[in-house]
Amino acid sequence: MSLAHGVSYLAIPGPSVTPERVLRAMHRTSPNIYEGALPAMMPALVASLKAVARTEHNVTIYITNGHGAWEAALTNTLSRGDRILVPATGRFSHGWAEIARVLGVEVDIMDFGKRDPIDMAALTERLKTDDRGYKAVLAVHTDTSTSLRTDIPAVRAAIDAAGHPALLMVDCMASLGCDRFEMDAWGVDVMLAGSQKGLMTPPGLAFVWFNDKADRARDTANCVTWAWDWRPRAFPKIFSNYFGGTAPTLHLHGLREALDMIEEEGLENVWSRHASLARAVWAAAEHWGTEGTLELNVRQRELRGHSVTAFRAGSERATALRRWCEDKAGLTLGIGLGMTEPDDPAWHHFFRLGHMGHVSAQMILGALATMEAGMKAVGLPHAPGGVVKAAEVIAAEA
Amino acid sequence: MSLAHGVSYLAIPGPSVTPERVLRAMHRTSPNIYEGALPAMMPALVASLKAVARTEHNVTIYITNGHGAWEAALTNTLSRGDRILVPATGRFSHGWAEIARVLGVEVDIMDFGKRDPIDMAALTERLKTDDRGYKAVLAVHTDTSTSLRTDIPAVRAAIDAAGHPALLMVDCMASLGCDRFEMDAWGVDVMLAGSQKGLMTPPGLAFVWFNDKADRARDTANCVTWAWDWRPRAFPKIFSNYFGGTAPTLHLHGLREALDMIEEEGLENVWSRHASLARAVWAAAEHWGTEGTLELNVRQRELRGHSVTAFRAGSERATALRRWCEDKAGLTLGIGLGMTEPDDPAWHHFFRLGHMGHVSAQMILGALATMEAGMKAVGLPHAPGGVVKAAEVIAAEA
Amino acid sequence: MSLAHGVSYLAIPGPSVTPERVLRAMHRTSPNIYEGALPAMMPALVASLKAVARTEHNVTIYITNGHGAWEAALTNTLSRGDRILVPATGRFSHGWAEIARVLGVEVDIMDFGKRDPIDMAALTERLKTDDRGYKAVLAVHTDTSTSLRTDIPAVRAAIDAAGHPALLMVDCMASLGCDRFEMDAWGVDVMLAGSQKGLMTPPGLAFVWFNDKADRARDTANCVTWAWDWRPRAFPKIFSNYFGGTAPTLHLHGLREALDMIEEEGLENVWSRHASLARAVWAAAEHWGTEGTLELNVRQRELRGHSVTAFRAGSERATALRRWCEDKAGLTLGIGLGMTEPDDPAWHHFFRLGHMGHVSAQMILGALATMEAGMKAVGLPHAPGGVVKAAEVIAAEA
Amino acid sequence: MSLAHGVSYLAIPGPSVTPERVLRAMHRTSPNIYEGALPAMMPALVASLKAVARTEHNVTIYITNGHGAWEAALTNTLSRGDRILVPATGRFSHGWAEIARVLGVEVDIMDFGKRDPIDMAALTERLKTDDRGYKAVLAVHTDTSTSLRTDIPAVRAAIDAAGHPALLMVDCMASLGCDRFEMDAWGVDVMLAGSQKGLMTPPGLAFVWFNDKADRARDTANCVTWAWDWRPRAFPKIFSNYFGGTAPTLHLHGLREALDMIEEEGLENVWSRHASLARAVWAAAEHWGTEGTLELNVRQRELRGHSVTAFRAGSERATALRRWCEDKAGLTLGIGLGMTEPDDPAWHHFFRLGHMGHVSAQMILGALATMEAGMKAVGLPHAPGGVVKAAEVIAAEA
Repeated sequence: MSLAHGVSYLAIPGPSVTPERVLRAMHRTSPNIYEGALPAMMPALVASLKAVARTEHNVTIYITNGHGAWEAALTNTLSRGDRILVPATGRFSHGWAEIARVLGVEVDIMDFGKRDPIDMAALTERLKTDDRGYKAVLAVHTDTSTSLRTDIPAVRAAIDAAGHPALLMVDCMASLGCDRFEMDAWGVDVMLAGSQKGLMTPPGLAFVWFNDKADRARDTANCVTWAWDWRPRAFPKIFSNYFGGTAPTLHLHGLREALDMIEEEGLENVWSRHASLARAVWAAAEHWGTEGTLELNVRQRELRGHSVTAFRAGSERATALRRWCEDKAGLTLGIGLGMTEPDDPAWHHFFRLGHMGHVSAQMILGALATMEAGMKAVGLPHAPGGVVKAAEVIAAEA
Repeated sequence: MSLAHGVSYLAIPGPSVTPERVLRAMHRTSPNIYEGALPAMMPALVASLKAVARTEHNVTIYITNGHGAWEAALTNTLSRGDRILVPATGRFSHGWAEIARVLGVEVDIMDFGKRDPIDMAALTERLKTDDRGYKAVLAVHTDTSTSLRTDIPAVRAAIDAAGHPALLMVDCMASLGCDRFEMDAWGVDVMLAGSQKGLMTPPGLAFVWFNDKADRARDTANCVTWAWDWRPRAFPKIFSNYFGGTAPTLHLHGLREALDMIEEEGLENVWSRHASLARAVWAAAEHWGTEGTLELNVRQRELRGHSVTAFRAGSERATALRRWCEDKAGLTLGIGLGMTEPDDPAWHHFFRLGHMGHVSAQMILGALATMEAGMKAVGLPHAPGGVVKAAEVIAAEA
Repeated sequence: MSLAHGVSYLAIPGPSVTPERVLRAMHRTSPNIYEGALPAMMPALVASLKAVARTEHNVTIYITNGHGAWEAALTNTLSRGDRILVPATGRFSHGWAEIARVLGVEVDIMDFGKRDPIDMAALTERLKTDDRGYKAVLAVHTDTSTSLRTDIPAVRAAIDAAGHPALLMVDCMASLGCDRFEMDAWGVDVMLAGSQKGLMTPPGLAFVWFNDKADRARDTANCVTWAWDWRPRAFPKIFSNYFGGTAPTLHLHGLREALDMIEEEGLENVWSRHASLARAVWAAAEHWGTEGTLELNVRQRELRGHSVTAFRAGSERATALRRWCEDKAGLTLGIGLGMTEPDDPAWHHFFRLGHMGHVSAQMILGALATMEAGMKAVGLPHAPGGVVKAAEVIAAEA
Repeated sequence: MSLAHGVSYLAIPGPSVTPERVLRAMHRTSPNIYEGALPAMMPALVASLKAVARTEHNVTIYITNGHGAWEAALTNTLSRGDRILVPATGRFSHGWAEIARVLGVEVDIMDFGKRDPIDMAALTERLKTDDRGYKAVLAVHTDTSTSLRTDIPAVRAAIDAAGHPALLMVDCMASLGCDRFEMDAWGVDVMLAGSQKGLMTPPGLAFVWFNDKADRARDTANCVTWAWDWRPRAFPKIFSNYFGGTAPTLHLHGLREALDMIEEEGLENVWSRHASLARAVWAAAEHWGTEGTLELNVRQRELRGHSVTAFRAGSERATALRRWCEDKAGLTLGIGLGMTEPDDPAWHHFFRLGHMGHVSAQMILGALATMEAGMKAVGLPHAPGGVVKAAEVIAAEA
């Protein structure tokens, strides 16, 4: 017998749970891509995409995933041989850097490990003494692997303190539509995200927002290809320019619905909801950790993202916990990513809980209570009652 | 701000949560109702319906809801002026009786209140001394309003002990596909249920199963109408006989998928899952009740149904709890039904949790944790930690 | 090889093609049936149902098919032993009469065959000399089997000319939302229809509209049962009254969308569209019939319904034509119904084309061109070029 | 009034009509992308993709549209400064060439206009005398704008006749799954197509097939980026390699269903169906053109693709025809593409009919009959009766 038969909760850190409304909006045969309702919906869609990033500048919609958006952001702003600086807070910083290297860009990494934030003073110092001419600083807002959240205004301040002209490019894959992010107010030049996390739309679209300074870099960038060129896409003359060919028709309808949901709830409310749910997760986890070896990967609350939480089990029972939750109770947790190699036994120490996008209190409480049941079932030592602590947070904040 | 944005869990005692698979199966334009795949699917569908009721006898599919099935069961077996006996365990016993009265049937009720089981000895005694010629005894397996579960084999035994020829007719609306039910082995003559609870299909179909003894009663029943006549429907010559006209095309596809899900899981496993989840609910509730006034409506575990649980808050805070759970956390609990009139302030003392059909451990734990948060938020006194007790049950039984 | 792979067109006379919008609206897990959006949608839904029937009186929504609606209309107005008069224009007149007989009503039929209209003078004469006390006259607006359309205002006039008090009850199953129908202006007392034809919603709902005179008949009707009683359903105190129990949740959402579609197009425009498409069908058929034996069942245009057309092939090739169209070309025609018994070889002389609800010019032209190809393929003699005549009608009227 | 209310037929040359089965398969919340059913489905999906291209070599699935596939094919095989030869048969040849130029590839075009095939002798001659070292010859199987179909085996023969080592790269966007195509037997080194035409899946995926010779070119290609690199995608170690990050979950389910449909019908049958439907289109058009100025863009039948047909109206009435068909009858025709600039009045001379993928005889006949009605309505001179000629083809070939 299994108790997993029911609505499954996919609590991996992306793709997130697709709302019924979004799927419904996507259930339609292909529309005309030359005239009519589909082209007509674009201006409002672009406006909503800018609003969710808190920018009045530009946005490009790509038919790709997050890795494609990384490449798009780089190719529109850099040339082969350019140098960039990557203050790294997890696997996704390194992943983005790797894509830059393939393009022929030289990358310097300041590695802050997997649990600690960027040392802003060190960043300023590095930029002050820059003799390599960094064209850009790449930061990841919330690293999906570590769940560490970078203080983007502080990065901006660190660059400004050095008086350095580098572009600030930020990966908000895991955070957009979850954690507060204000592109213009925070001085971010380029930002990217995908459809499938906070934006609640199935995988298949990714977005690059850029301001005018970034667009000037496009003038000289020599490795942009036809497919990634943001100029025709962000400043289209006809509908097909948006996508450099055939539009991703279904996803546009899904995205429209998802952005409607965000606008109906209110972006500030969306952020507050994610914050409260994150605090509920932390309350549970911190309580569990008062006995045994379980702990959160990020020690300080102010450094934790609101959309994903990385756990360290302190033993190899993490994998057993994930299996139990999925097979026995209908909850799919995320694997630990980037903490170790998959063939290292330590790989089984890590797991993650995604709490991004279409997530309510009852879903998060269900996930936490299931985890508590699972820890008991698989013998992962912990202090019982974490879910009660979470419920207290929810009771106080809802 | 609200923490309700996400996948809502409709935890009322029916309609239950519709599985994604069932909805997907129903998303199709109307098929040919004269030839082809739709008529061809009927024999297997009928076989699956019989299997889920553990009978080798007959079944009729009606386009109606549960109240229609009540009428169908009565009209095929009774005549105006006939007498029946209803040992009542909640609102739904009385509801069925009322429909019989409208048909011109005389009804005697033995009322066992809202929390207590049928007194089997008293039932035998009544039947032994029957001078009114009861044609049928009507029992409700699990009363959706009280969540009291009647011991159907014991009812059969009580009738047999009296040597009485009355038909045993059982309402399994709330229990079929959740609690063990064995129509043939238990000696049930007529049984009815709907699509929208344990059978996981949206409201719109209801079913009446009947054995040959019941069918013989059809020979003389004088109040059966064309629309309810089970003969052509259960023994069809052509496809349209099944439904006395146009078939409920979408629902048949949904029902097929739902029965496939039950068969894939295994009916015994489905029953075990509901039993474990019910024990988790009870563990939470019994713990909460160790402080304050909250209690389960049915005091003894063996009398509680496995698909729905009726709560008594002991104060008017039940309605506040329901509202909080729905508005703040994404969980919809059921109203108390049949405990009091809606305009009685005591109406706000009652609520119910449905745990029928497509329900997993993480859903139930999420519901319980949300209820615990809600009780704290609205000030409904309780012993905190009930959800931990539930998690322990899940850990032990999954 | 088959040329049938593609979007199939189910051109049987009901269920009609379900619009994508309607299916999309129905793709949702069950909602709360006690509070919230579902109960709130009812007043507007009822208003739209009245509007589509052009009445300011009352309407009941039943979870049933058309045969159930027949029974509902009869039971709310008649008593066992009452007498009614049925001027019959096809199989469905006889079907409705049969249901009345099962209820214990005495039925007199004036049979006008399968191709001819009611003789209104004869009807008046019969009513003038009525010594049986007819309580109701039952008429079918468009008989789905013959496609003959009855002039309902003329029936009203015939009754009035006799000064007879009988209720006028009309079956609009095949015509509502297709042919002009004005319940109040035409003096119709009771009207019924289903969801699955002109109302473009999958089978599963049927409706009975009734005026105050009909409702007064309810006072004395002695064969109404709980399930069919229109009083609580049409004049509900609480939401569950509408459906005498659990609501047909999915269908209500589908029906809402379908009625929105009708209102967006405009009911007069819907009627005009059906009229033009019917004229296109007739133009093709009349042309085909200038050679060979094919002819339309109804000889005079003004007697033909706008939603379905019954054909007489004049040979047994009709069945071959249907098979070819379905297997080879993706078009499903309707079988001939009620013209002969299925085991009579003449059964293969008849077929029907449904053109009701969600039908456009390109669908109808596609059906006609396919029929023309099929007649050629199976050797059913005809004058080629009927589809060109149909295209001319479309060109002139669109 | 409009006769367009009904199932719309989007008869543009892509995206094609999405089958109900495909949409149904895509209606599901996001699945786990790390383990389980989604990763497990990949080997069979890849095998089906190879089968539909008649190759035993390799295939890459990209989250992109056709233009992205163009770039992918080029970047994996070429380096900046390389030279290629493009024998052009329409706009899409030029489009592909333009993308190569943006990559820094030097492109020589042999332009054969918009109505005429490649001159194979001239191609051989050019390659024999090649002093520029062409690395590749780019051919478009069916050009979507002109509907001219290139004889790919003849191109192969022309290259071989010159003894030239250039890669043969073929764009099958408009033809794959419609016209016969045998990658291995025909000696094609690289082939590309998208999801949204013959493969019946909504826009969002595109594919590049390549043989080992092409893969050897990858060794030295210096402009491949991380996102387009086919090596990890075609030879993945783990599931995420297939897509270089997050998988396009919904589209994979849709594609699986579409490939199942092709396999159930049989690829040879799919090709035969498209061939018959194309002949029906041509029969109608050739007949219409016996009066007035309407003609098919491609004069010789053996040069016409089976999935799209480009029309030349010979007057500006083509746009009026398209508008009438869409607004009045529910048929959306394709605009003329690449024949002239949109601001040239001659732009209104052209239109196209797509007949690719999920298309049946009744759909095509409906489109043709609607076009005939439309030509009459808008005054586009033609010989009436083309649709009858088409019906004759269907009757003979179905």
